[in-house]
Amino acid sequence: MKQLLQEIRHNPLLWLLVFVPAVLVGEKVRPEAHTLLFVLAVLAIVPLAALLSHATESVAARTGDAVGGLLNATLGNLTELVIALTALRAGEYMLVKASIAGAIVTNTLFMLGVSFLLGGLKYHVQEYNRVSARVQAGLLFLATVALLVPSVTPQSDVLAGAAFTRKLSVGLAVLLIVAYGLGMLFSLKTHRELFQSAEHGEESETPWPIGLAVATLAGVTVLVALVSEVFVESVQKAAESFGMTPAFVGFIVVALVGAAAEMASAFSGARKNRLDLSVGIALGSASQIALFVAPVLVLASYCIGPTPMDLQFWPGAVAMMMIATLTAALVTNSGRSAWFIGVLVLMVYLVFALSLYLLPPRTH
Amino acid sequence: MKQLLQEIRHNPLLWLLVFVPAVLVGEKVRPEAHTLLFVLAVLAIVPLAALLSHATESVAARTGDAVGGLLNATLGNLTELVIALTALRAGEYMLVKASIAGAIVTNTLFMLGVSFLLGGLKYHVQEYNRVSARVQAGLLFLATVALLVPSVTPQSDVLAGAAFTRKLSVGLAVLLIVAYGLGMLFSLKTHRELFQSAEHGEESETPWPIGLAVATLAGVTVLVALVSEVFVESVQKAAESFGMTPAFVGFIVVALVGAAAEMASAFSGARKNRLDLSVGIALGSASQIALFVAPVLVLASYCIGPTPMDLQFWPGAVAMMMIATLTAALVTNSGRSAWFIGVLVLMVYLVFALSLYLLPPRTH
Amino acid sequence: MKQLLQEIRHNPLLWLLVFVPAVLVGEKVRPEAHTLLFVLAVLAIVPLAALLSHATESVAARTGDAVGGLLNATLGNLTELVIALTALRAGEYMLVKASIAGAIVTNTLFMLGVSFLLGGLKYHVQEYNRVSARVQAGLLFLATVALLVPSVTPQSDVLAGAAFTRKLSVGLAVLLIVAYGLGMLFSLKTHRELFQSAEHGEESETPWPIGLAVATLAGVTVLVALVSEVFVESVQKAAESFGMTPAFVGFIVVALVGAAAEMASAFSGARKNRLDLSVGIALGSASQIALFVAPVLVLASYCIGPTPMDLQFWPGAVAMMMIATLTAALVTNSGRSAWFIGVLVLMVYLVFALSLYLLPPRTH
Repeated sequence: MKQLLQEIRHNPLLWLLVFVPAVLVGEKVRPEAHTLLFVLAVLAIVPLAALLSHATESVAARTGDAVGGLLNATLGNLTELVIALTALRAGEYMLVKASIAGAIVTNTLFMLGVSFLLGGLKYHVQEYNRVSARVQAGLLFLATVALLVPSVTPQSDVLAGAAFTRKLSVGLAVLLIVAYGLGMLFSLKTHRELFQSAEHGEESETPWPIGLAVATLAGVTVLVALVSEVFVESVQKAAESFGMTPAFVGFIVVALVGAAAEMASAFSGARKNRLDLSVGIALGSASQIALFVAPVLVLASYCIGPTPMDLQFWPGAVAMMMIATLTAALVTNSGRSAWFIGVLVLMVYLVFALSLYLLPPRTH
Repeated sequence: MKQLLQEIRHNPLLWLLVFVPAVLVGEKVRPEAHTLLFVLAVLAIVPLAALLSHATESVAARTGDAVGGLLNATLGNLTELVIALTALRAGEYMLVKASIAGAIVTNTLFMLGVSFLLGGLKYHVQEYNRVSARVQAGLLFLATVALLVPSVTPQSDVLAGAAFTRKLSVGLAVLLIVAYGLGMLFSLKTHRELFQSAEHGEESETPWPIGLAVATLAGVTVLVALVSEVFVESVQKAAESFGMTPAFVGFIVVALVGAAAEMASAFSGARKNRLDLSVGIALGSASQIALFVAPVLVLASYCIGPTPMDLQFWPGAVAMMMIATLTAALVTNSGRSAWFIGVLVLMVYLVFALSLYLLPPRTH
Repeated sequence: MKQLLQEIRHNPLLWLLVFVPAVLVGEKVRPEAHTLLFVLAVLAIVPLAALLSHATESVAARTGDAVGGLLNATLGNLTELVIALTALRAGEYMLVKASIAGAIVTNTLFMLGVSFLLGGLKYHVQEYNRVSARVQAGLLFLATVALLVPSVTPQSDVLAGAAFTRKLSVGLAVLLIVAYGLGMLFSLKTHRELFQSAEHGEESETPWPIGLAVATLAGVTVLVALVSEVFVESVQKAAESFGMTPAFVGFIVVALVGAAAEMASAFSGARKNRLDLSVGIALGSASQIALFVAPVLVLASYCIGPTPMDLQFWPGAVAMMMIATLTAALVTNSGRSAWFIGVLVLMVYLVFALSLYLLPPRTH
C-alpha cells in the first residue's frame, strides 16, 4: 500500500485519480450534468488505465515469462475492453464498433505518428529492428483484413439478411480467437526472440509485490467499470453539447482515453531512441484489438447485450482501418524513421479526425 | 506405357484414376444422380491434373529450356482452363468468373499459407530468395490490378451500358495476353536468372520419354474435358444438396480441385525447405490465371459461348482478389517465414471461404 | 536573349514554340475551329512547359540551395497549376478534378513505367537508391491518402450535405499546405541528404543568367496562361469531335501535356542509368500535386471560381489514384528495376486510359 502511495506521489499522471471519487459522487449528486460527468469520467479513466497497465506488468513480472507474457498480452487492452463491455450492455452498438475501429486507427496512426515525430525531433534518423516491425505489421494487416471481411462481403448483396452477417460474425469471432491463441503461442513460446526487444522495454520500472499488484488489478478494474458506466451514459449528451458527432466520440475520444497508458510508454520509448518498443506497443495493441477484443465483444453480446452484435462496420470505418494498417505496413517497412514521416502519419490521422468531427450526426 | 503404369503404382494419388471410368460410366447409367456424379468427378479430376502436370514437365524437359519453359508456363493451368472452357460453353458465366477469382485467391492465400505452415512446422524460420519473390509478387499485383479495372471503373457509372464493359473486356484481354507474352520473354529469355531457383525444383523427378509424355498430355486433356463436362453439369444441383452456394463452389471447390497438382509440388517444396519453389508456384500460377487464362476465356466466349463474357466481377470478389494479392506482396516482402505467418494467411482464406459458404444463394 | 535563342536552336522540342503565336492568332481569326485550336494549344504548351522548367532551374541555381530548392519545388508543376487555374475560372470543375487525379496517375504510372522500360531496354537490371525511393513513395502514399479522405468518408452517408464536403475540403486544404511546408523544410533543410541524388540531376545543363531566367519565367507564365485559356475553351468541343470523353481528356491528355517537360528529364535520366533521378521526379511531382496544387486550387476557388470547389472525386478516380500510389510503393520498394516491370506499370496505365476512353460520356 505504501508502495502504491509512493508511486502515486512520484507520477503526476496518477494525481488525476482524484477525479475517480469526483465522478462517482458527481453521478449521485447531479446525474443530469452530462457534460461535467463526461469530462470527469475522461479525467478519471486516464490514471486508472495507467495503474491497470502497471499492475498487469507487475503481475506478469512475478509469474514468470510464459504466464506473465500471456497476462500482459491479454490484459493490455483491459481498459478498452471494460469500456466497450459497458457500452455493449447499454446496447450502444454504434459506440462499441466505433471504439473498436477507432482503437485500431488511433494505435496505428496517432501512437505511431507521435512516436516518430517525438523521436525524430530528438534524433536525426532513427533505425529500428525492421524484421520484428515487419512481422508485427504483417500480423496487424492480416488481423484487420480478417476483421473486415464481413463488412466487405455483403456490400455486394444488400438484400442478404442480417442473419447471414450475424452467423458470419460468430464464425469469424471463433476464428479470430483461435488465431489470437496461436499468435500468443508464437510470440511467447516458439518465436519469442522476434519480439524480444519490445518485451524488454518495461524492465526499468520496479515491479510491485504480487499481492499489491493483484489487489490493484482487481480493484482498479472495478473502478474502471464504474467510471465507464458514467462515461457511456453521459457521452451521447455531452457530445451533443460539445457539437461532436457520436462517430467522433467513439472513434477519437474513447480511443485516445482508452490508450492513454500505452501511449505514455510508446512516446517515452521514442524519446529514448527505442523505437522498437514504440512500434511494438502501437502495432501489438492494434492487433490485439482486432484479434481479441473485437471477437470477445461479439461473443459477449450473446450473453449481456440486448441483441447480438455483428462485425459489420460502415464503409468509411472500413476504409479508415484498411488505410491505417496499410500505412503502418508501408511506413515500418524500411526500419528507418525521421520526423516528417511522423508528421505525415499524423496528418492522415488528423484528416480522419477532421472528417469525423464535421460529419453530419443525423446520418447515422 | 510400362513407365506410366509404374508411376501409377508408386504414386497413391494416381490410384484415384479409377474414378475416371467410374464417373464416365456413372454419367451414362444414372445421369440424375448429381451429387454422386459431382463427388466422382472431383475425385477423378485430381489425379488427371497430377498426370497432366507431370506430362507437361516431361515434354518441357525434353524440348530444351526455352520451348520447355514456354510449354510449362502455358500448360501449367491447363486443368483450370479446360474446366472453365466447359463451363463457358454451358453458359455458366457465374461459375467461370468465380473460378477465375477463386483460382487467384486460392493460389495466393491457401497454397502460400499451407506452404508457410507446413514448412514452418518443420523449420524454425525459413529464408527464401526475396528478390525473386518480390518480382513475382509485383507481377501478380499488377496482373490482378489490370484484370480488375473493368470491375472498378464502371462502379461509378451504374448507367453505363453493358456494351462499354464488353468492349473494355476485349481490349483488356488483348492487353493482358500481350503482357503475358512479354512476361514469358522476360522470365524465360532476358531475365531467366531471376526465376531460376523456382524452375530447378522439378528436376528430381525422372522425365518420361517424349512419346509417352505427348500421348499422355493429349489423352489426359481429353479425359479432363470429358470429366469436366460431368462436373459442370452436376455442380449446381450437387451444391444445392450439400447446402453450398454457387459462389462457394466456384471460388473454393473448383479452385482447390483444379490446383491440386500444383499444391502437391508447392507443399513438398516447403517441407524440403525450398520455399522459393513454393512461392514461385503459388504466385506464378496466380499471375498466369490473371494474365493468360482469364483473357483467353473472354476471347473464347466470342467463339464458343452463347453470349460474349465480360470481365466484370462482383464487388466482393474484387475485394477478395485485391486483399489476396496485397497479402502476398506484404508477406513475401521480407523473404522470411515462420509457421504463424502461414496460420494468418490461411485464416484470411478461411474467413473468405466461411463468408462465401454462408452467403444467401438467391442474391446472385 | 542570345542565350535563349541559342538554347532554342539546339533543342528541337523548343521549335514547337512556333505554335504559340499560331494558337493565339488562330483564336482571333477562327474562334469556332475548336479541334484545330485544341491541337495548336497542346503543341504550344509542350515547349512552354519545357522553357518554364529550365527557367525555374536557372533561377534556383542562382539563388543558393535553400531558396532555389524552394522555388524549384514550388514552381515545378507551374504548367499544371496555370492550366487548372484557367479551368477553375471557367467553372470547369470536372476538368480541374480530372486533371489533378490524372496528374497523380500519369506521373506515378506513365512516367515511372516509361522510365523503367527505357532504362531496362539499355541496362539488364538497374539499381537505385531504395532508401530515398522508399521515403518518396511513402510521402506520396500518405499525401494521396490525405487527399482522398473526403471522397472516401461521405460515401457512407449519401444524405450528408454538400456543406460537409466543402467544409472538410477547406480544412483539408489547410492541412495539406501545412504538410507541404513541413515537407519542404524536411527535404531542403533538415534531411536534404536523403534527396540529394535526385537533386543533383540537373547540374549538367548550364543555368541561364538570373535576369534572363526571371524574365523568361514571367513571360512564359503569361503565355501559358493565354494558351491555357484557348485550351480550356476548345477542349470540350474538340474532345467530342475526336470521340474522347471529358474524363479521358482531363485525366490523360491534360496530364500528359502538363508533365511533358518533367517527362523529358525523367526519361533521359533513365537512359543514363540514373533511375534515382527519374523516380525522384515522378514521385516528387505526384506528391506535389497532392500536397500543393490540389489544396491551392480548392482555396483559389473561393476567390476566382463561380462557386467553391470541393475535393470529392468520383469513385473510379479514387480507385485509380490509390492503385497508382500503391503500385509505385510496391514497385520502388526493392530498389531494382528491369524492362518488364516498366511494361507492367505501363499496362496498368494503358488499362486505365482504355477504360476512360471507352467510358460512355453522358454518365458524368
